[in-house]
Formats: sequence, C-alpha cells, structure tokens
Amino acid sequence: MIVVMKSDATAAQIEHIAAHITSLGLKPQVIQGTHQTVIAAIGEERPGLTEVLEPGDGVEKVLPIMAPYKRASSELKRERSVVKAHGLEVGGKRIAVIAGPCSVEDEEQIVNLARKLKELGATGLRGGAFKPRTSPYSFQGHKEAGLKMLATARAETGLAIVTEVMAPEHVDMVSEYADVLQIGARNMQNYQLLQAVGDSGKPALLKRGMSATVDEFLLAAEYILDRNNPNVMLCERGIRTYEDHTRFTLPLATVPYLHEKSHLPVVVDPSHGTGKSRLVTPMSRAAVAAGADALIVEVHDDPEHAVSDGAQTITPAGFKEMMDQCRRIAEAVDRTL
Amino acid sequence: MIVVMKSDATAAQIEHIAAHITSLGLKPQVIQGTHQTVIAAIGEERPGLTEVLEPGDGVEKVLPIMAPYKRASSELKRERSVVKAHGLEVGGKRIAVIAGPCSVEDEEQIVNLARKLKELGATGLRGGAFKPRTSPYSFQGHKEAGLKMLATARAETGLAIVTEVMAPEHVDMVSEYADVLQIGARNMQNYQLLQAVGDSGKPALLKRGMSATVDEFLLAAEYILDRNNPNVMLCERGIRTYEDHTRFTLPLATVPYLHEKSHLPVVVDPSHGTGKSRLVTPMSRAAVAAGADALIVEVHDDPEHAVSDGAQTITPAGFKEMMDQCRRIAEAVDRTL
Amino acid sequence: MIVVMKSDATAAQIEHIAAHITSLGLKPQVIQGTHQTVIAAIGEERPGLTEVLEPGDGVEKVLPIMAPYKRASSELKRERSVVKAHGLEVGGKRIAVIAGPCSVEDEEQIVNLARKLKELGATGLRGGAFKPRTSPYSFQGHKEAGLKMLATARAETGLAIVTEVMAPEHVDMVSEYADVLQIGARNMQNYQLLQAVGDSGKPALLKRGMSATVDEFLLAAEYILDRNNPNVMLCERGIRTYEDHTRFTLPLATVPYLHEKSHLPVVVDPSHGTGKSRLVTPMSRAAVAAGADALIVEVHDDPEHAVSDGAQTITPAGFKEMMDQCRRIAEAVDRTL
Amino acid sequence: MIVVMKSDATAAQIEHIAAHITSLGLKPQVIQGTHQTVIAAIGEERPGLTEVLEPGDGVEKVLPIMAPYKRASSELKRERSVVKAHGLEVGGKRIAVIAGPCSVEDEEQIVNLARKLKELGATGLRGGAFKPRTSPYSFQGHKEAGLKMLATARAETGLAIVTEVMAPEHVDMVSEYADVLQIGARNMQNYQLLQAVGDSGKPALLKRGMSATVDEFLLAAEYILDRNNPNVMLCERGIRTYEDHTRFTLPLATVPYLHEKSHLPVVVDPSHGTGKSRLVTPMSRAAVAAGADALIVEVHDDPEHAVSDGAQTITPAGFKEMMDQCRRIAEAVDRTL
Repeated sequence: MIVVMKSDATAAQIEHIAAHITSLGLKPQVIQGTHQTVIAAIGEERPGLTEVLEPGDGVEKVLPIMAPYKRASSELKRERSVVKAHGLEVGGKRIAVIAGPCSVEDEEQIVNLARKLKELGATGLRGGAFKPRTSPYSFQGHKEAGLKMLATARAETGLAIVTEVMAPEHVDMVSEYADVLQIGARNMQNYQLLQAVGDSGKPALLKRGMSATVDEFLLAAEYILDRNNPNVMLCERGIRTYEDHTRFTLPLATVPYLHEKSHLPVVVDPSHGTGKSRLVTPMSRAAVAAGADALIVEVHDDPEHAVSDGAQTITPAGFKEMMDQCRRIAEAVDRTL
Repeated sequence: MIVVMKSDATAAQIEHIAAHITSLGLKPQVIQGTHQTVIAAIGEERPGLTEVLEPGDGVEKVLPIMAPYKRASSELKRERSVVKAHGLEVGGKRIAVIAGPCSVEDEEQIVNLARKLKELGATGLRGGAFKPRTSPYSFQGHKEAGLKMLATARAETGLAIVTEVMAPEHVDMVSEYADVLQIGARNMQNYQLLQAVGDSGKPALLKRGMSATVDEFLLAAEYILDRNNPNVMLCERGIRTYEDHTRFTLPLATVPYLHEKSHLPVVVDPSHGTGKSRLVTPMSRAAVAAGADALIVEVHDDPEHAVSDGAQTITPAGFKEMMDQCRRIAEAVDRTL
Repeated sequence: MIVVMKSDATAAQIEHIAAHITSLGLKPQVIQGTHQTVIAAIGEERPGLTEVLEPGDGVEKVLPIMAPYKRASSELKRERSVVKAHGLEVGGKRIAVIAGPCSVEDEEQIVNLARKLKELGATGLRGGAFKPRTSPYSFQGHKEAGLKMLATARAETGLAIVTEVMAPEHVDMVSEYADVLQIGARNMQNYQLLQAVGDSGKPALLKRGMSATVDEFLLAAEYILDRNNPNVMLCERGIRTYEDHTRFTLPLATVPYLHEKSHLPVVVDPSHGTGKSRLVTPMSRAAVAAGADALIVEVHDDPEHAVSDGAQTITPAGFKEMMDQCRRIAEAVDRTL
Repeated sequence: MIVVMKSDATAAQIEHIAAHITSLGLKPQVIQGTHQTVIAAIGEERPGLTEVLEPGDGVEKVLPIMAPYKRASSELKRERSVVKAHGLEVGGKRIAVIAGPCSVEDEEQIVNLARKLKELGATGLRGGAFKPRTSPYSFQGHKEAGLKMLATARAETGLAIVTEVMAPEHVDMVSEYADVLQIGARNMQNYQLLQAVGDSGKPALLKRGMSATVDEFLLAAEYILDRNNPNVMLCERGIRTYEDHTRFTLPLATVPYLHEKSHLPVVVDPSHGTGKSRLVTPMSRAAVAAGADALIVEVHDDPEHAVSDGAQTITPAGFKEMMDQCRRIAEAVDRTL
C-alpha cells in the first residue's frame, strides 16, 4: 500500500501516518519526492486498510498494491482449474456448451429440447425454475416443479443440469436436482447466498454483476472458495454501459484477463451479453476465439412463444449453425467443442 | 406498446404479428408509414410483452408505452406518501436526517454518538450490524450483538433505528430491534429479501442499485408495495460510472424525477454517493436544494479509526456544520430541517 | 510515480527498471515488500512516463502520484480566479446567470428575449450561431449572420455574449462579436481549437466532454492556459452514463471537487445536464447549493417552436421562477445572484 | 415518430399536437389506448423533429421510428462497400491488417519496421505524425516531417499509409502523403473536420468516439458520405465504461451489428480497445471471429522506448504470432488474412 501525502502535508502529519501504519502491523517506509512525500506500508495488505488510512489528515490518496483476492488468484495456484459436474467439464481442452430455454416451461418441452441439444453437441442443459424478474408481475418460474422437469430431462439425456438458485434457503432443494448452481448477475454480491453455495460444495456458475469490476467479481468468487468449495466457474454475461443497441455490452477482454489473474475457468453468455438473437452466433465465435472455456446460450423451440427472454433466444436450427461455426473456431485455437 | 416492423417486412409478417397481438388479449392497430409499418397494441401493457413480440419475423423493435410500475406510480396515488417510524417522518415538510457510523462498533461508542447526533438535530440513527462487504476477509458486522447496541442507543435517545437487513431469514430478528429496514444497493434486486421486507410491514429504506435504472428502482419498490407494505423510502446513493475522482456518481436529478413519477419519499446518501468526506456537506446542501425528503450520512467520532468507510465519514463537528448549512437551504425551499 | 513489479519479477528485471528510471532523469528507490517489490521514481513526473515504464518486463502496473495539470491547479495558484467579460463576472461572490436560446433564430427574437432576460437578472446572453449537430441534416446555425444578431442584442441590453466557436479558423470572426468563446462538449479535446482560443486571449467557457474524467477536463483547460490565456471557466454539463430517464447525468460533486483541485471558476449547465425542462429549476437550485459560480440555461419564448433543444428549454416565465428560487439558495450560501 | 401523450392529457392538448404534426408536413394518426393516447406522425422523419414535439403540453415522450442516418444505411445500399487505397482493401473476403507504431519517431525506425510488417502480412502502415494528446506537455508528433517519413516507408514497401488528421486546415497536407485519413475518437464529432475529409474524397478511417452510440457513430460517417465521399471505414476502438482493468471496453458486438445496419466496412483496434499488449492478440482473434473486415494494431520494435502508447504496443515477434493465430481464425470464418 502506498499512502500519498498532500504537497503541503506537515512533518507531524507524515509522522502520524507512519505511526498509524505501524499500529496496523505494517512497516512504514517514507519516500521524499520532489513535490510530495509518499509512505510505503510494507507487509500483508488486508482489505479495508485503504479505508482506514484515507481519512488521515494530510493524506491525498491511498494506492493499494496487492490484488484483494487470494484463493481465486493465479499466483496462489498456477495450474488452471477444471470444474466437473455430471459429464460437464469446464476448463479443459474441450469447450463446453450449456444450452436451453430461459425458463423451464413444461416437461415435454424441456425433454424434447434437451434431446435435440444433446444431439447437437451440448453437454449441459440450462433452464430457470426460479426466475429473478425485474417486475413482480412477470412469470417467476415453476420452482420445485421446474426442477423436477429438469431432473427428468437429465435422466433422459445425461446432460448436466445448470439452474439458478436465488436464496440461501433454496440451496438444498436446488442441489438435489441440479449439477451446477447458477448465481445470477443480480445476486453476485448476495453474500449469504454465496456462502450457502460455498457450503453446499456443489459446482457453481457465478455470473458477473452487471456493474461489477473484475476485482469485485473475483472477490465474489472468493466468498465461495473461502468455504472450501473450489468448483467455481466465472461467467461473463455483459455489463451495463451507455450503449443502447444491445441489452448489455459484452466485454470479451475479460476472458484473457481473467485467465491471467485467476486459475478459474471462464464461461461466456452471448445471449444476455447482447440481448439480440442475431448477435448470439457471431459473439459465440468471438468468445471461443478469445479463449472462453464454455458458452451458455438460450435456445427455445419457438422463441416467439417463450415465456421469457425470447428476443435473445435462438432456435435449435440456429443453435446447430452456431455449433458448426464455433467448432471451426475451436479448432483454430487448438481446442475442441 | 408499439411494434415497429422492418422496412422490408412482408404483408404476411405484419398480419402474423397483428394476430399474435390479438392472441395476447390486446387490440392491434396497423399504421402504414412512409417507409415502415408500425402496429400499436392497445390494452393493458403487461411486463414481459415486449420480449414476446420482439423475436417475431419482420419485427425491428418493440417500444413500450406505459410505465412498468403501478403501486409506486404517482398516477395511481397523487398525494405524496409520508413514511413514519418511531418519530422519524420522511416525506413531509420537515427534512429528516439519519446519521451514524457505517458499522456499529461498541455500545459506548454508539450511545455517545447517538446523543450528540440527536442534540444536533438528527431524527434517525444509522449503523450497520450486518455488513455486506466486497471481500470475505473484511469485518462483517457484530450481527445481533450490534442490533442490541442500536436498541440501547434508541432507548437512550429516542432516535429511530435504521439498519440493514441482508437476508430474508434475518428480517424477523432485525425487525425486533430496528424501526426501519434498510435494503442495500447490492440487494436491490434480491427479490426474496424484498418480499420478506414487504411481508414484515416495517418501514423500508430501499437503496438504488449501483447500476439500476429508475424504472428498475421503482419496480424493486413495487416488490415491497405489492406485499401491502406501503412504507417505502427510495434512497439515491450514487451510481457506477466511468468517473474515478469520486467513489460513485451522485445524480441528484433523480430527486425531482422520482417526485414526478412516484408518490414515495426520496432520501439521498451523500456519503456513499461521493465516497469523500470533504464532498459530503456540499452535496448534502445540493440534495436539500433539489428537493430531498431526507439525508442519510455517515458520522463517526474518529473516522480514522472507524472499522469501515472512514474516507467518506464526517465527524460530529463536521455534522454540526452540515446541519447548519442544510438548515439554511431547507428554509430557502420552504422546508425545515 | 510508483512502479509495481510482479510478484515473480526477477532481480535482473528490477534492476533493469531502476536503470530505465535513472535514464529518464528520475531517481529510483527500491522498496522490498512482503510479496512484491515496488520502485518509487523520484523527481518531476512528466505526462507520458507511465506509458514508457508499463511495457517493461516484470512490471505489473505503474501508479502516477502527481496531478497531470499544473496551471489549472490550486497548488500553483491558491486564490480563486475571477473571469470578467463585458459586465459578466464569474468566480466572485455574485453568481452569474447566462441565459438564452439554444440557437439564434432571428434578430427580433433574440433582442426581445435578451431584454426580458436582462430584466430578470441575467448577466450573460447565450445563443448558438455555429451549431454542432449530431446529424448533417439538422439546422447548423446562422453563422456570421447569427453573430451579428447577438451583437445587436448586446448593443441593446449590455449583456455579455457567450457563443460557441467550432473551428480554429472561426476564432477571429467569433471573437469580433462575442465576449466569451464557448467550447462545446464534443470539442473538449479538439486541441487545435483549444490552442486557437488560448491564443485569442478571449475569456473561454470550456464544456466538459461527455465522457471526460476530471483530469482530462483540467488538461483541456491546460491547453488554453498554456497559451497564456488565464480566462477559463469550467462548465459541467452532464456526462454520459447508462441512465436513460435524463439526456445526460449531471454530477454536481464536480463543483466542490473542481474548487478543491483548481482555482478556475465552475459553471453548471442544467439544461444539457438533464435534457428535460421540468428538471432545470430544481437542478439549478442544487447547482447553486453545491457552490457553482454561474449557471448557463436555455430559455426561449416558445420552446415548442425552438429550432433546437426545445425539450430542455424553459420559458421566460419559467426563468423568472428559477431566478427567484436560486436567489434564495444563493443567499443561504452567503452569495448573491 | 410516435408521440406518447400523458395519461391526463386533455382533448385540446391532443388536438394541438396533431395540428403541430400537420404543420410539420406529417400526417397525424391518433390512437386511443386504454390509459394513454399516442399519436403516430406519418411521413419522412427528419432529425430534430423529436425535439420540436417533446416540449408540447401534455406530451409524455416522443419515440423515433426511423434510423437517423441514410447514406450509411444498409437499407439504401444492400451490397457491402469495399474501400480501396493503394493496395489496401477493406471490406472484401481478405481481412486487412494495418500495423505500425503509435507515433512516427524517425525515418530509419519507420522504414525498417514497415519492411518487417509487410513481410509478416500487413497491407497498411499506421503511424501518427499529428498526435492528439490529453496533455499539452506530451509529445505532439513530428507533423509534416513525420508525414515525409511515412511517405518514404510507403515508397520502400508499397504499404498504404494510414495516418491521423486533426484539423480541417491540415487535410490537404496529410492527403498529399497518406492513402487513408484517420479521424481519431476525440474528433468523431468535429464536424468541420468530417466535412473537410469528405470533400477531400480520400478514403477515411473513422474511429468511434469513446462514448458515442452506434447511431451517433453512423451519423458522423454520414457527414463524410454526405460530401460525396463513399470511402468510409468504421473503426471500433473501445468505449469508456466503469471497467478499470483495461484502458477502454472493447464491445465486439458492434461488428455484426454495424454489418446489419450499414454497408460500410468495419475495422477493429484491439490496441486502444484494451490498452494492454497482452490482450491484443486474443482480442484480435475475437475481432476476426466476430466478422471484422480489418484490424489496426500498434507495433513497435521496442515498446519500452516508444514515445507513446508503449503499454498497448506489441513487438514484431508478437505481431507474427498474432498474424499466425488470426490467419487460422480467418480461415474458420471462410476468409483470408
């Protein structure tokens, strides 16, 4: 940590901050600059120390040096993590594809669709039983009945089930039916939920909050990892910006950046990331080219009659095309799909 | 709702969409433009309808017409709501001030501070017992012990207690000690929590999510209102933008805009909204001038030794100055403080 | 400047960077941390040095310490600057108000309007003769003819003329008629224009770019100041964010922050900052309460028939109300208006 | 255009707006909704009409229907445009690569580098002679001397020269030496410059402004096209968001979206788009996979000693690797490179 003193900071203020640093268990080293004094605080940089030093008299700003996350860091664990869940493997040479409807609607629908997706190369089945909806008047999902439909589809196809859990008290129930617990973007900083998912030991697919920085994203993963659950997948699903021609802005540089900073596998969601079905396939190709370990996409037999997210949903025929194109890109980056 | 067809949409596509609109219980009215056809869908606009129509063949885009919220709307209820909680009144002529430390640290601290704040004109005491922290390694609050300290401060001073609740399963416990349940920015779309707070009937202070639109903010309030809990205060606490000289960007135009669209009272948090103690007083003045019904500010006897948020915390002396200045602004807008 | 080395940087890499710092005329000071080494570079921090050191092998990141602007800095000049132009004074105790239409439309209109504005307390007249328009098909202004109309209004009322200059080659012409050269948000980083305005010696009203950081804003001012033109006013006019209920997001914390970092006066534009006429008066009050030295607002006799920006324009009656309300706020912050 | 009236708009207000629409040369069609009346304005939608109708009494909002750009639109011209400039072809089957240093530093450097780049497959040479710099104290480029160095490199290698022009008065001079005039992000809405480049007839590479919407970007192109210069390339170079781990956020969905809306070719700049040399190659791959027609990348023999932008610059060895990888992606999307 580097404490930058104001250009008119007094000797007494500098001394006071140095003493404060010592009282925090760190070693201060004062560096006299041409215009300003800076004080390096040597030792283990703990979260929250910045806040403690910033209000000091004569302090201009405090610059953290170390990354705030630990277990998620590639410095702690150099080899890449592979998360495995009922045949779904994310983080290896093969790029995984998780596909399915936004919401589970009825058993026949989900089973039939799952069969097609399996045949076209998907290894995971997505589908919402608990649906976080912006409006209380929107369809909120079939809940446990929906989970049972997913379980049937799993039994019929062998696909791993990826589904969202919205509250700590549902973690046990969802874990019974699902292979991967998805934590939605709105809940990325719902810490009780992160801890409950951590405690469950179940593989987790953690979506990036729509305005989360990469550090905040990795710290959210840290909440799960810190409960001794190493099975975390990071999912880039687009961020909120001023752009209005897409639902969100999908920043694919996150993929190689996260691979550099973390050992955790990275999933990309081009459906939410764009909000427009016509953009899903090109952005899937781009995600694979950027190095994504998996894709998660919304597919529905009849997007026009889907109960939610129709505008960003592709058909099985569109999915086939997407898979064909992404397979070629995967080969071009020495991977399979 | 207005469905805009592409310029090359066929007659069959237009007919198909019109039929789809009819099947949704709305009445289609086709308008032949110079370049494009648009179809107005007349009737009750339900959330989710946009999504249903957007994927249709030949559709360019769908434009919603009606506001998606109802109970929060000033169209439904013209007179302004006043939320009352143990002496705290928000929404009336008097501007309320809720002050206190970021975290409750110990009983003596909170009781002494509460006495000073009361004397200086605060009507509510804020203080975190459950603390949502970005890092799992940061202090997470004293939990129930903290709530008890707040209860003591309340008994000693009569100040209304405003404190955060982070999970549905804590709503009962927090309700026992607190007068107002605060829902934090990170939890603005934690729907289980919103519903639990709604069911409690307790006054709620709902913070705007850091990248929530105003519509999303009002829809989150709608989740509480829809549980027959009318006691909702909306709190603008800053949004995430590219600006880096402040912690968040505090957009005060939200205050008059919310007053126009909704009957709910509006609170402003200049501490989180700026992240810098030196900016708290000028932005408090500005908030009052913009029409805020209440302020919520972080105050600590010794910000340099606060366990959290020191950089944006003012001292009781600073608070006195803030109150003096805001009182003058309040008078200039025909209110009191 | 602080160069943070990667945790696995080798001794040779550290030595290499230290030598590179020396070759740049700075003195390196190596600080051995627990996990990482950082190197402080002591001496005059020049813009561009960060870029030079960042690509070095073993470098994690480079943290600048000093503010990149000089002449605009309150460290260089402690007393606040007052910009004077034909009766308009910005930066003193009296808050100035610059008002007028978006575009100058015809002579009678502008002269009549100017008379009313003068009577209601305005000290400057705004009005566009050269109009930067997003679309090439929109009205682009009356150009020199418009300037002449402004000159007539000035002769009739004594109001100082504030009008935009869009290109270096127009600076002389606009200077002939105007008292203050306005540089629009789109041109904040049009360096040729900034230099030409600097060379003219004329008072300048520099609008913040719609995605400019405060540092970039002050560096743009620096381009003018560096040409020995000290007459610069900084104008906050709203930034582009994800918010969609207002045209831009108006971040008033810029006002006290700029006052802390710079000696230059700060103007606020609530018309562009909100894009909605109904929000202009409350945000004007808030701007004055936050400490603004001047307001610049769009006023038109008949906003519905204004050739541009009608939606954010108020009428003379609305302007009167705004002035009355702002005068009271001005008094509450010990200023006049 | 659709004018949405407020729910409490009076019959007189509705009539007044309908008459106003007629007076604008459009045909009003009133649609009586359940809660609100909307009025469709049928006819040619001109820019600026929204502004004219929005301030009307009883108007809630105005929704534009038609795209504001014309010549750039794929509706006007269905076949994709190919821009050709001295051997550089952008928009055809072969993906073009424009490479070179941020700034032209000296003749030997640029000629040697150009030879290597040519050999590795580049078809264009980039290099700044006029440099727009955030700070007036940074290196501003060698100006005409720099252009001459570029001309020498062109004579030696046959590479097309792509270089920035910053002011209308330099267009002639830069046109003498360069094959493509680059308009930088900061100047995307410098309309005088756009018109001058339009009038020159020279191929233009227009960079997206760092907070420009796609509509604004296409309208900027429209300024050039409207001067009968059809040779415009659109360049996505990243937008400003809250993300802080990259210099800008590079939204690749712009590529397929622009291809859908416009016939103009799309270039991607992964150097500015990320600001980090390590992210340039993965994002180049992603850009090609997303459908980019060309890449523009910063390459320097010794990034550590580059006078500008070193942190985002790759070496010729890195460039070779990038080319090898992108060539494979190009084949996977049935193109060459």
